[in-house]
Amino acid sequence: MARTQGSHSDITGPRVRTAALKLFAQHGFAAVSMRQIAREVGVQAGALYNYTPDKQSLLFDLMNTHMGELLASRADLPDDATPLQALETFTRFHIRFHSERPEEVFIAYMELRNLSEDNFARIEGLRRTYEDQLEVILRAGMAEGVFHVADPKLATMAVIAMLTGVNTWFREGGRLSLEEVEQIYWDMVRKSVGA
Amino acid sequence: MARTQGSHSDITGPRVRTAALKLFAQHGFAAVSMRQIAREVGVQAGALYNYTPDKQSLLFDLMNTHMGELLASRADLPDDATPLQALETFTRFHIRFHSERPEEVFIAYMELRNLSEDNFARIEGLRRTYEDQLEVILRAGMAEGVFHVADPKLATMAVIAMLTGVNTWFREGGRLSLEEVEQIYWDMVRKSVGA
Repeated sequence: MARTQGSHSDITGPRVRTAALKLFAQHGFAAVSMRQIAREVGVQAGALYNYTPDKQSLLFDLMNTHMGELLASRADLPDDATPLQALETFTRFHIRFHSERPEEVFIAYMELRNLSEDNFARIEGLRRTYEDQLEVILRAGMAEGVFHVADPKLATMAVIAMLTGVNTWFREGGRLSLEEVEQIYWDMVRKSVGA
Repeated sequence: MARTQGSHSDITGPRVRTAALKLFAQHGFAAVSMRQIAREVGVQAGALYNYTPDKQSLLFDLMNTHMGELLASRADLPDDATPLQALETFTRFHIRFHSERPEEVFIAYMELRNLSEDNFARIEGLRRTYEDQLEVILRAGMAEGVFHVADPKLATMAVIAMLTGVNTWFREGGRLSLEEVEQIYWDMVRKSVGA
């Protein structure tokens, strides 16, 4: 029995997530019903509850998966990487990862208000972990005298906002390739921390 | 008659906008009904239609007012202002203006998807006008050799995203005053354009 249930869930899970992601991004969490999500997946509303207890869990699952993938996708750097190399790797990774997931990024920012208190705290924790990784890089560069930053916490927030902003305007097939955008943003990030 | 209608509208208009702003920011445009807005204002649903033909007009009105205020609030610079002074003024203005209007900023970003095609084009036009003002400053600084920017369009988007990002984390009474935040961001913006 457990095996059957598991298999069922393995197939339905990603389809439910994809449907919820699409509908939340299109209409907003509060405007979407479990019935609409079921219709999008192509199952009865009741069947959806085999996969998820409620819409809140679905929203948390989407954001948690997104943040988990973000943290898991960061490439390991060689032990002798300099802070400048670490910052360049972070910059290019952040742009690429987020540009591939416009709907996840949109929801991660927009639907924080709809998370329950506990779920919000967990997502905030993951977000803080990611921000801390950049702050550690900036502090290492400051300690070595290669970065000149007045406040590493603010510089962390500034760099992340600048990079995530690419999502608001970048379109494949536009004037610049993502490679070129990465290069130009890396140049600005480097300068902004005084390196 | 016209006078009475005008007066009525003058009183109700701002209250309707305030109510719509609050509810859209809290629940999202698609989840809010005209009936809910009327309840928040304290009038019958029918009375709301004296003020606005529909929810779409209300959303456009909010965004249009926000962008109009943004463009009208920029202080005139002295004729002999340098590009560096113009950039500093822009930076400080942008942070202050947006930090005072968290709900408007949230909606301006989040609800673009819910504007009709015509309304979207008009809001986009105003946004473009604002971005162009920064691009003109950057190009002037590049022409004088005081700014070193690889791509003024991308630098424009990067600086605006960095500055608007303050809204996601700044809280009055936190570790730093808005004045201090402005100073630190100005330092980063200046460096990011190579000045």
